[in-house]
Amino acid sequence: MAGKVSPFAPETLVEPPAISGLRIGGIAAGVKYQNRMDLFLAVLEPGATVAGVLTTSKTRSAPVDWCRHVLSQGKGRAIVVNAGNSNAFTGKAGMEAVDFTVDAVAQVVGCARDEVLVASTGVIGVKLPADRISAALPALKAKLTSDSWLDSARAIMTTDTFPKLSTASCMIDGVSVTVAGIAKGSGMIAPDMATMLSFVFTDATLPQDVLQECLSKGCDESFNCTTVDGDTSTSDTLLLAATGAAKHDRVEKAGDPRLRGFRKALNAVLKDLAIQVVKDGEGASKFVTIDVTGAKSKKAAKRIALAIANSPLVKTAIAGEDANWGRIVMAVGKAGEEADRDRLTVSMGGVVIAEKGEGVPDYDEAPVAAHLKGKDIHIGVDLGLGTGKARVWTCDLTHGYIEINADYRS
Amino acid sequence: MAGKVSPFAPETLVEPPAISGLRIGGIAAGVKYQNRMDLFLAVLEPGATVAGVLTTSKTRSAPVDWCRHVLSQGKGRAIVVNAGNSNAFTGKAGMEAVDFTVDAVAQVVGCARDEVLVASTGVIGVKLPADRISAALPALKAKLTSDSWLDSARAIMTTDTFPKLSTASCMIDGVSVTVAGIAKGSGMIAPDMATMLSFVFTDATLPQDVLQECLSKGCDESFNCTTVDGDTSTSDTLLLAATGAAKHDRVEKAGDPRLRGFRKALNAVLKDLAIQVVKDGEGASKFVTIDVTGAKSKKAAKRIALAIANSPLVKTAIAGEDANWGRIVMAVGKAGEEADRDRLTVSMGGVVIAEKGEGVPDYDEAPVAAHLKGKDIHIGVDLGLGTGKARVWTCDLTHGYIEINADYRS
Repeated sequence: MAGKVSPFAPETLVEPPAISGLRIGGIAAGVKYQNRMDLFLAVLEPGATVAGVLTTSKTRSAPVDWCRHVLSQGKGRAIVVNAGNSNAFTGKAGMEAVDFTVDAVAQVVGCARDEVLVASTGVIGVKLPADRISAALPALKAKLTSDSWLDSARAIMTTDTFPKLSTASCMIDGVSVTVAGIAKGSGMIAPDMATMLSFVFTDATLPQDVLQECLSKGCDESFNCTTVDGDTSTSDTLLLAATGAAKHDRVEKAGDPRLRGFRKALNAVLKDLAIQVVKDGEGASKFVTIDVTGAKSKKAAKRIALAIANSPLVKTAIAGEDANWGRIVMAVGKAGEEADRDRLTVSMGGVVIAEKGEGVPDYDEAPVAAHLKGKDIHIGVDLGLGTGKARVWTCDLTHGYIEINADYRS
Repeated sequence: MAGKVSPFAPETLVEPPAISGLRIGGIAAGVKYQNRMDLFLAVLEPGATVAGVLTTSKTRSAPVDWCRHVLSQGKGRAIVVNAGNSNAFTGKAGMEAVDFTVDAVAQVVGCARDEVLVASTGVIGVKLPADRISAALPALKAKLTSDSWLDSARAIMTTDTFPKLSTASCMIDGVSVTVAGIAKGSGMIAPDMATMLSFVFTDATLPQDVLQECLSKGCDESFNCTTVDGDTSTSDTLLLAATGAAKHDRVEKAGDPRLRGFRKALNAVLKDLAIQVVKDGEGASKFVTIDVTGAKSKKAAKRIALAIANSPLVKTAIAGEDANWGRIVMAVGKAGEEADRDRLTVSMGGVVIAEKGEGVPDYDEAPVAAHLKGKDIHIGVDLGLGTGKARVWTCDLTHGYIEINADYRS
């Protein structure tokens, strides 16, 4: 590993406030890493509801299969997460390790097996030493608090160079509600969903179906708009748990206008965490926002934006601070969606550099060059065909990515 | 640019023999590069037929549009190609540059405009100085010979580190026939078709529709099975011209068994050129052959093979000589085709390292490690679902790719 910290790492970390009905924390269980926290546990008071978005990978991990089962019940009392081993492609032993872990957590927490959610992240294909998890659980449970956010965020990191936390608050029916979450990246990041784990909590009082609807929508506008390398993980797991400790009237319908503030707060947390994951993308030196407008549909716009975001040639041009907009045009052309070369407009840093099928003669390169020297890059593409639009976030492709990934398992 | 020569560059270049009815050559026209050949011209005797496969990019270049037009007529007398400027996304000026070039070639060669094919490769979005092409044409035409293969191959190179040539011979109806061609890469390489230019010639006597059928089929098994970076160029052009100088009876039907030998020779040349393009992929240090078997269909097998071939995490693992088969499993899972985690078999260098959803316990790592230290890497994936299979060729992702592409335009 490179050992370099992302240039986007925040200078100070702001910890979210406590959420009533929730206790969290991390501990060093020695699952793979030594001398660092690698096990996270969240314990929810009885009655909490849980929603989730899981990877669509056909080679998903055993923990993902288990989460799918628990989410179908809709209730959750505990979330346990280990870092360093994804327990993916581990065959029967993988499900056995999940079973063993679930049993141990159910016993320590005092809840049913069906109320324990599990996530694992790290190397694929290596058997998970679940006994190290069970051995660490009593000590971990004893140190849980209602606000150990930083320990929690650190305990789920793999190649992340900084812990990722976010929080927002809102009112539901005149009652103050908190949303707070943690996330980890930072390779195998692509939609469906951005490869990562993220755990978000709220004290709102919401039935599972409403919670799920809010989460699915929010995920589509956040994690599903990000990509680092186009590689979808086998372990992607985003969970949202609501403790119901906030004493507003239970909101029964997803369409209820009283949820407006909550959706806004939730989406802000999801987007903030998703962007942090991209900003900590392996080897990232630039954060890139891509806006595609004028597409035939929203779906077409997103596919084109992702084709640009995943193009190695676009990503290396950004790394090289080169206004090589021809590569953006190439990526639009290969996306597989309708595009008309002669209606295409491309901008960088807000400066239009190509329109109607050709470069703008004598466009002012100075502000574009200055923009590309910065850390936050903007690419705009207008297709001139319709009203579909999408925004996607990515990072550049640098030597750092190669360094990290040509020597990951060893 | 890195200036390093691919480790796969051949030690000696074997030049194809002369093809009757064809004169070829290269010259330094100074289109962009200085002190090197950058203009290729092929002149065919009257009566030659021409077939082609062109990029499917929605942002294709003006020369591609023009070739589509010429191919619809089916006859060709000249092919002119410049390196260093792709004349793509150059608006009206792009088509004007093509017109100007076509006029100049038609005049020098003494043929109709509709018999002149044009291809350009290089940077996108910069106006092509076609006057430099026309100025160089008389001297170029004067130096054409029937066997200037090496000059020709060199004249079309961009970031290629070695010229690419191939030849094969066969019999049609008892008459000896030659197939010979040149190609260039070496970034923006992905199917539909592998981003590149390739020009193949034969003295066979074949009508255009038969020639086209042979070429399309051969391309599907060669160039369309390769990828370097998944980036499809706006300029991909593969042309096959038949001079008709070989005095066998004209073969009128694509299904005629007398074409068996010709198809074999043509496919051998196409495959050889396609593999050379991958082996000269930007920054390539390993050549990777990926065999996917047991898929639901041939199409599914190819899509899965390409998902593996294009995965940055797989490509960096190969670069790092790391038997990280978990990343192969990940790529299968994200391909969007049917796969069953628990039936999947993965091998490297012929050694099965994972099967039925988990790693093979205590598989012999030594031969796999030795295999990965070599230059020619083999990955095998069996899905256990059906009889669909596909073979795809790619290279690894190294610091060399970043070096070349973070500083290409400047």
